Amino acid sequence: MRDAIRIVGIDPGLRRTGWGVIDTDGVRLGYVACGSVSSDADDSLGMRLRQLFDGLSQVLAQLAPVEAAIEQTFVNRDAAATLKLGQARGIAMLVPALQGLVIAEYAPNAVKKTVVGAGHADKDQIRAMVKCLLPRAVPDCADAADALAIAITHAHSRRWTKLTESIALAERALP
Amino acid sequence: MRDAIRIVGIDPGLRRTGWGVIDTDGVRLGYVACGSVSSDADDSLGMRLRQLFDGLSQVLAQLAPVEAAIEQTFVNRDAAATLKLGQARGIAMLVPALQGLVIAEYAPNAVKKTVVGAGHADKDQIRAMVKCLLPRAVPDCADAADALAIAITHAHSRRWTKLTESIALAERALP
Repeated sequence: MRDAIRIVGIDPGLRRTGWGVIDTDGVRLGYVACGSVSSDADDSLGMRLRQLFDGLSQVLAQLAPVEAAIEQTFVNRDAAATLKLGQARGIAMLVPALQGLVIAEYAPNAVKKTVVGAGHADKDQIRAMVKCLLPRAVPDCADAADALAIAITHAHSRRWTKLTESIALAERALP
Repeated sequence: MRDAIRIVGIDPGLRRTGWGVIDTDGVRLGYVACGSVSSDADDSLGMRLRQLFDGLSQVLAQLAPVEAAIEQTFVNRDAAATLKLGQARGIAMLVPALQGLVIAEYAPNAVKKTVVGAGHADKDQIRAMVKCLLPRAVPDCADAADALAIAITHAHSRRWTKLTESIALAERALP
């Protein structure tokens, strides 16, 4: 794919953080890789955060995406679970920031709407659409599929932003 | 101070993360330094987490503590605030973990009980006792004083653990 931009989508979680990398030239989407980084529940919290940091750092260094997208986590569970998720999310945002990437955040409904076309889509519908949009992708876990959905959302959002910018430029050029 | 262990206490926050470093030989406490690392509220979340990461990494590299202590954050505010705090706390635990430090966590009540002697002590009482225990310390902000209180708690907890270990050893040596 010529003039492609490489995007990493990240679905953060303390137990397992999913990641998915795609290329886009503004129109087409190309699958690059996906997977997940796990932390050992028997280890201390500091050690677990380090495992996520090391794993994600390695993925980004190897695949060299230039933009990152992450879900704006919707929280409806107890405070302890929210704090735990927040800690993992801190690492998931720090790693691309340290590598100088632009980081976009998307609400879960925006991801569902972009990928499936409806803000209330369920997990299975999202995965079916990811499979349809990126036929070569074989996510080994739900978190990797979700991460690809987030990357796809960012690719579409970029395209939309570019389109509206082009229209605005064209309108300004009118006599 | 001979045979001293150097401890860093960390009070995490996205806007400002306090840190305080002390030495202890198991009985006495020695003040080393304290301060805070701020993030710019106008920057993106990724950039703010990076600012905390860079600032804390620099402090730990410079002062070389060998153990770290952090508050087990008690959360009673809304989910958004909890998530924000969690993200900052993730960075505050990652930095010492990356430098191979042991990290201890203490409940806020344990910090109050250790420093003031009562689990319901208020912030002013804590700061007055920190000043009393570490006369050379001149914290420039509340977060730095709280971080010193957390470090003191860890120093006392280590001493208590060592004492009980010694008693257990002595009892086992009895005929």
